[in-house]
Parts: sequence; structure tokens; C-alpha cells
Amino acid sequence: MRFGCMSAACMVMVLMPALALGAKAAAGPAATQPSVEQWGVFDQSFPGPATGNPFVDIELSARFTLGNQTVTAGGFYDGQGQYRIRFMPGGQGQWNYVTQSNCDQLSGLTGSFRCVAATGQNHGPVRVQHVHHFAYADGKPFVPIGTTCYSWVQQPDEIEERTLASLRASPFDKVRMCLLPGKQPPLFYPYAKDDAGKFDPSRFNPDFFHHLENRIEQLGRQGVEADLILFHPYHKGEMQWFDEMDDAGDDRYLRYVVARLSPYRNVWWSLANEYGQVKNKTDADWDHFFQVVESADPYGHLRSIHNAARIYDSNKPWVTHASIQNGSAVADFGRAVLYRELWPKPVVYDEVCYEGNIDRRWGHLSGREMVERFWFGTIAGTYVGHGETFSNPQKISWTSEGGELMGQSPPRLAFLRKILESGPPEGIEPIDETYQTHVGGKAGEYYLVYFGTEQPTTWKFALPRDPPNKNALTEGMQFHVDVLDTWNMTITPIERVFTTDKLVESVFPAVDDPAIPLPGRPDIALRIERIK
Amino acid sequence: MRFGCMSAACMVMVLMPALALGAKAAAGPAATQPSVEQWGVFDQSFPGPATGNPFVDIELSARFTLGNQTVTAGGFYDGQGQYRIRFMPGGQGQWNYVTQSNCDQLSGLTGSFRCVAATGQNHGPVRVQHVHHFAYADGKPFVPIGTTCYSWVQQPDEIEERTLASLRASPFDKVRMCLLPGKQPPLFYPYAKDDAGKFDPSRFNPDFFHHLENRIEQLGRQGVEADLILFHPYHKGEMQWFDEMDDAGDDRYLRYVVARLSPYRNVWWSLANEYGQVKNKTDADWDHFFQVVESADPYGHLRSIHNAARIYDSNKPWVTHASIQNGSAVADFGRAVLYRELWPKPVVYDEVCYEGNIDRRWGHLSGREMVERFWFGTIAGTYVGHGETFSNPQKISWTSEGGELMGQSPPRLAFLRKILESGPPEGIEPIDETYQTHVGGKAGEYYLVYFGTEQPTTWKFALPRDPPNKNALTEGMQFHVDVLDTWNMTITPIERVFTTDKLVESVFPAVDDPAIPLPGRPDIALRIERIK
Repeated sequence: MRFGCMSAACMVMVLMPALALGAKAAAGPAATQPSVEQWGVFDQSFPGPATGNPFVDIELSARFTLGNQTVTAGGFYDGQGQYRIRFMPGGQGQWNYVTQSNCDQLSGLTGSFRCVAATGQNHGPVRVQHVHHFAYADGKPFVPIGTTCYSWVQQPDEIEERTLASLRASPFDKVRMCLLPGKQPPLFYPYAKDDAGKFDPSRFNPDFFHHLENRIEQLGRQGVEADLILFHPYHKGEMQWFDEMDDAGDDRYLRYVVARLSPYRNVWWSLANEYGQVKNKTDADWDHFFQVVESADPYGHLRSIHNAARIYDSNKPWVTHASIQNGSAVADFGRAVLYRELWPKPVVYDEVCYEGNIDRRWGHLSGREMVERFWFGTIAGTYVGHGETFSNPQKISWTSEGGELMGQSPPRLAFLRKILESGPPEGIEPIDETYQTHVGGKAGEYYLVYFGTEQPTTWKFALPRDPPNKNALTEGMQFHVDVLDTWNMTITPIERVFTTDKLVESVFPAVDDPAIPLPGRPDIALRIERIK
Repeated sequence: MRFGCMSAACMVMVLMPALALGAKAAAGPAATQPSVEQWGVFDQSFPGPATGNPFVDIELSARFTLGNQTVTAGGFYDGQGQYRIRFMPGGQGQWNYVTQSNCDQLSGLTGSFRCVAATGQNHGPVRVQHVHHFAYADGKPFVPIGTTCYSWVQQPDEIEERTLASLRASPFDKVRMCLLPGKQPPLFYPYAKDDAGKFDPSRFNPDFFHHLENRIEQLGRQGVEADLILFHPYHKGEMQWFDEMDDAGDDRYLRYVVARLSPYRNVWWSLANEYGQVKNKTDADWDHFFQVVESADPYGHLRSIHNAARIYDSNKPWVTHASIQNGSAVADFGRAVLYRELWPKPVVYDEVCYEGNIDRRWGHLSGREMVERFWFGTIAGTYVGHGETFSNPQKISWTSEGGELMGQSPPRLAFLRKILESGPPEGIEPIDETYQTHVGGKAGEYYLVYFGTEQPTTWKFALPRDPPNKNALTEGMQFHVDVLDTWNMTITPIERVFTTDKLVESVFPAVDDPAIPLPGRPDIALRIERIK
């Protein structure tokens, strides 16, 4: 079906024989775009029909080729008679492209650009690596220290700028954020209104997306991944229908979003927040949405879905990692690892209640509790997300609107991030998790022993054998020990070398059975690194 | 293919025209079997060919009909020229049957029997009920208090009789038990040897099965479910090949076992023990085995698989309940519930380490720890299994060979069973599990509050609201409280009525905010029942 070409604007083009004959050089801007960084954004606009409903009528995509490699990227209508193709090149060299469309004016347009090496903080998109962990496309490990600011891109500019500044000064390298408006009317809506003043689910609002894309780009420059929440159950009033679009409307929304946003390397897809509470959507719908996103996104950005009421099956092949809401699962030893054992995928406890002081039981964790939850998750080989809900005169909260961080946890999470980024690049694995719930690390090389609220004054050196890696740790290895105060952010080296002695059941003590003095406070951990 | 009919014995029958023409009355015994209880075993033998390899050559089944209901049951060769059809009737009335076979002698035989009401302790097979719980076919709730005696049916009679006597005196109503021999050579092997003295994977040993069936029947009469473990990774020496049969051998084994054993109402299928350690079997193999069992078993007995190394995906439709090996998951508050939240199926922590005193870390739980694990599982709405490994002069241990129970936990588990069997028939559900990890029950009606090793001397009455059942508990309800000592097995009523007051955040205190005195010992629980 070539609806688009029946529109008046397109008909004009069909009548111009020179342009109707297959390949046509794209408009000027392509020539002026000299080069694009690997994993940067190639962005090219084309004029086209503005009449009818281009969001529905016109199909547009482009085939990008580099040597033997061909990638098809979706295009989209950007309003005011402008169409746009965006593309994230994954390899360096000369890329050529040709457009396809059901509108002749937009079909067969060609162009090319040179893709050059990434610079600075551009490490490419984040992928799963080492089964339960993450790394950028260039191999640099990515340690998610995430936070949530649901509606931060729907605020006055002044607040959004403060949010960006707060993130810059924070340890957070991933932010969960919604596209669709929540309970409060936003400044921008993703949909346009029809002549009767009602939102039209078949017409997007390009201004909303321009603003959003600018914020996603800014996050990217700051080294923050944008974990984009595509659906949620919080619509009220005139936004209620965002929850209740028909199947075509849902798919159109997903395809438009993916075409526009997937070329930004720092995008992750979170199919929904609290998906089980979105009315009128079954698990089959969520399976379908995952598949729409997976097939529309040529870059394979990370895909997850966030639970309430029920937990989506993370074994399904289109789920790249589990995104779990459960504060209890990281509130003590031995819990977080249980989910990790089920799925050969990363587990991110993305909502674990919030640091704050509001009168809701999910909104008044102490900073200490928040930090502790990160450590419980860490030693279990999983990841944890932060959130913050302090009541304040401005009546905005970090997790809802952004603004300033007020809590005590962020500097301590920066300390944790520093520890992890200087740890094994493969990430922290649980070590003998059924019997040694205090210990994570890399068998034979690196261990974190965490005590939580326990206040030991001494610790007898003993490293557990890792059952699946029985030979990784042996007698006669030498280790250095640092005492970490996870709250006061200090690292105190122990000035002696610990040499593993003979195995006793499943644990290696050290020669002379030395005891390490500890400060008798909570929030203490040990970092134990092999030196020989 | 009608291999069987090429055998000499069968050829004779083919030559007898009167018998070759369709329906034939079955041999005498059918007439002498006046009636069978509902969920009892109808068992009929037929003479047939004994030459060739009847286990491979002859196919036999029977179609049983009661009114509009038709059930096809597999038949099997029982040695010495005898074939057998067994059937568990699920409804009362006159059942008629007709056999099918690729051997004419065994095909088209007909008969009938009357199925009468179940009596005594016959409640039918156990099914899943109320999503996470179990009940017999007649609706009586089944509370699994399971144990494990891997090789108890491969011991001298004297030991096996002691095992049965121990079970009779115990609270255990489910026993996990292996079919295939383990590390020690058994008295009976499920396979026969060939002329060269080597086991033949294409010939079963009916004597092995007669013995096993007798034991399964005895368990049934004692009210014990037989959780039959079909594969395991523990074969050594000349039994090694049990692990390494080809696909046809595996399927033949499963079909033979299911044909013989599925008519016993107390059978459950555990596809494997520590399935991840069975060499040469992939997850696709286990999927297939589940499907073979599911399609061969006309009664839909419960199906699970027990993990090591990796955990099978309990979302798969042929899994009726999760059978989890993980002692840590029931060693503290807030753990067991995590798996339960994933699957709309019962979760049974079937191996949680063993009460005992052997020098293996999985084999020296104290009785107290074992009881505690059952309670941690219970308040999370899950079930727990017992095991026991005491060193003793006889060098047999309960969990390996059976014999006598020596531990301290069984009487306390009997106390728990009594509590549960007098509790809500729907089973114990977690109540507000993310915030109230000490509490399980039935919202608004019945609560168990468990303190584990904590030793409180007082408890302020407060019942949490159940988020999915917000209106189940309200102000003004009246409750009775019993203090349970889960170790000393005492029930101490509190002589006052507790009336719920206004909701405070998510908890209902009682009017006058009363505090309940507690003994300041570990192992205390509260039973709180609505009286008005």
C-alpha cells in the first residue's frame, strides 16, 4: 500500500520524471556532514509530503552499507514536511545508504558518510558481557550505578538543567526515565492534539521528541545511560488513553520511538514500569512489544521490563537482563543471589525503595540502608538502583522530577563505584553462595567480604573455595587485604601478606591463622586481592 | 511395524482364526476382580509371546471407557510370557476396556470392572490446588512434609521394613526415592543382563519392578507419596551406562516406568536429582523427557526436576511445581518467597541440607536448624523437605539407605504438620512479603508470625495488610493468639481478645495497643486466628 503517494505533496514529486527514476542524491546536508564517530549519530533530513497524516501514511527506512555489512534503519516524520533518517554506525569506514519508502519522493535517495574512530567518553552502547555483567561495545566494563528520575524530561528547563548538573556530580551512570507523562501534566506531550483539542494517538508531537533527544544526548555526553521506560500505569485524566491505545496505536508508538531514539548509543529499553499494573495488557502483549522493539532496533539495545504484581519471565529470549523491583531482595544476605541463579543474564534490582523522609514506607530509607542494599546486591553478583524521595519546599523529588540530590548515599555509592571499577573487569561473582553469603569476587584473584550491620572487631582470614572453579584458589597463594569502611569511605591496608594454607573443608585459612582487626562498626567490608 | 507378530509365539495366535477376529474376552482373572476403588489399581495380565525381545517388539495399550470418558493406559511386558495392563480409574461406575497391540494375540481383548468409592485413607492422587499448594483429588488439602531416602528400595528386606516402620512413626508424607541404582551396587537392578553378563538397556528386570511396586503400594497405604526420581548422575562402574543410554533407550525406560507405575495414585515424577550434573543431557533432553512422561501418563501425576549446577525453568508448561535444592533459601527470613513470586506454581525446597553429624558441610545441620528451615519455608508460602545423615555403626544413613530416623527434627515437624493441617485449607500465603518477612497466613483470617532465632520477650500486636487483598483485614475484627514453641512443641493461648484498631500505614494494631509476653527463647511463633 502506498498511501503516502496519494497525498497532494507527493503527487507533485511523482510527476517529476528526473527524480522518479530510482537513485537520487540526497539533499545538501549529507555533503556537509563530513564524518560521524563510530557509535555516533548520522542524521539526515529529507523534504516530503506534509499533508494527510504522514505519521501513518508514509513508510520510510534506509539501508546502510559498509563493505559486506548492511543495516536497515527506520526513518520517521519529524513534522513540517521534514522526514529524517538516523543511524548509529557500528564500524569505521565509508557508509553508503539508500532510502526505501512508499512515497516516491522519499524512495531511492542515496548518500554516504565516513565513520571515524570514537573519541573521548564514547565507548559505544552497553552490552551484556560475562553472562551477568555489562560492558560497552569497545570492551570497557560498565558498572551500573543507576538511579531513577521518572519525569525529569517533562520539567521546566531550569529544573532539567539542575538535574543534569546533579547527575554530573553524582556516581550515577544510568537513569530510568519515562517517555509518557505521569500523574502530573507535563510541559510537552508526545502526541499532538486534533482540531477538537483532544490528543490524537495517530499524530506524534515532534517538539516533544526534539526536547527528549537533546536530553538523551546530554546524558550521553555525561556518561549516563538513558534507561527509557516505554509504558507505565500512571496515566490520569486526559492522559488516561496512553494506557489504552489499540494494538495498532501501541505498535506505532513503539516503532516511532525506536526509529527516533535507537541511534543514541546510551539508550536502553525498559518496556514498562510496574508492567503488571498496566491495565488491558496481557503477558502476550508484553511478549509482542518486546518483539516489536527487538525487530525495529537494528542495534540491539538492552531490553528489560520492570515488575509489580507479577514478575515477567526473564528466560524469554528477548529479555537481555532482569530489571527487578524488590527492596527486600537486597535488604539482607543471601537473597539477591537467588534470582541471579535462575537466569544466565544480568540481574539489576532497579527499584529497592528510596532514600528519603516521606510518609510512605517505600520512601524513607536511610542513606545507610540504601548503601547497604547496593553492597548486598554487589556481593551477590547483581546490580542495584538508587532513588530518592525527600520532602522539600520546592515540592519536587529526585525520583519523580529530578532537581538536586539531597541524600547521604550518593558519595558512598561513588566510593562503591570506584571500588568496582578498579576490581576485576569480569565483574563480581558470588563465591560459594549457598554457604558463604558474605563473599563475592573473582575466584582465586579478588574477594569482597561484606559485614552489613554486623560489627565484628576481628576477622580470621579464610577464603571459600568456589565450587564451580575448584582449582582457582589453592594453597600457597598470597593476598593483600584492605579494610573498607563503606560509609566513611576509607580504605585501610593491612600491612602483612596472607598466604593461603591447606584447605579445611571448603575454606582456605591463611598460614599462622591470622586475625584481622576490624573497627567494630557496621558497614565494613574487606577487599582481598591476590598479589602472588 | 508389527515386529511382535513375527515372533514364534505370536504366529501361533495369528493362525487361530476365531481369536483373530477383533474383540476377545480377556482371560479369567478379569472376571474374578469384582471391583476396584476409585484411584485404586486395576491390574490384568495376559499371556503373550516370550520370544524375541518383547520389551522392544511388542506394543500394548488399552482404552478404558466410563460413559463418555475414555482413557488410554500403556501396557507392558512383565516377563515369562506375561503382559500386563494397569489402570487407575478416576471415576466410579462400570469401566470397559479393549486392548490395542501390534501383536494380534494381545489386540482387541476386552473386559470390564466396577469402580467403587474410595475408602479409608484413599483420597486419590495429589494435585496442585490454590496455585501454590496441593490437595488430593477428593479435595482434602495435602501438606507436604517430605523427606529423602534415595536408595531405600534397593536394600535388604530387613532394612526396608525398618524404613517403612520409621516412616509410619514419622510426620513424613512424601519420600524422594531413586529408581536407578546409585554408587553402591543394589540388590536388584532395573535391567537384565545379556548372555555375556552385561546389562542390556533393551531388557528390563520385572523382579526389580515387582519389588518396587510393592514398596510404592506400601507407602501409599501409609499415606506417603512416592516422589520417584527417574534419572540421577550418581552411576558408577558397571552402572555408568544408565547415564549414557541413547535417545531410544531413555524414552523406552521412561515409557516402561510410566506404564508400570503411573497407576499408583501416590506416585510423583521427579525427572532427575541434580539434573545439571547428569552428563550428556541437555536442557532440550530434559524438555523432551518431561514431555514423554506427560504424554505417557494418563493421570497427570505431579512433575518436577531437582537442580544442581543450573536451575530448570519452572515456567515451562510441563512443570507442575518447582523442586529446589537450596538450603540457603530457607535459612533466613525473606529468601524462600523470592522464588515463589516468580512462578504460579508450588515451590518445594526439596533439599535444604541434612540433619546429622557427618563431616560434610551439607550433612550436619542441627535438628533446630532443620526445623527452622521448615518454618522459614512455611511462612513464605512454600514447602520444605527433610533429610538426615547421622554416622552410625550400621553405616547406613536415612537419606541414602533408610533405616531409622535418629534426628531431633521429626517430632517438631509433626508439630508443624499438625499446625498446618488445622490451618486454612487454602494453605499459608505470604502476607506483605516485601515488608513483613516474618508473617504468613490467610489475609484477614489466620496468621503465623515466626521469630526464628530471635528471642523477643514481648510482641506488640500488629497485623500487616496484604497489598493484593486490601480489604481482607479491617478495623474491628477480633482475633485469638496462641504462642507456639516450635521446638518444645507447646501451644500457649493468650487469654484475651485482640480487636484490630485503625490502620497505621500498612499495619493494623489492636485496640489499647496490647503487648503479648513471649518467653525470650528462640523458635517461637504466634498463631493468630480470627474469632469474629
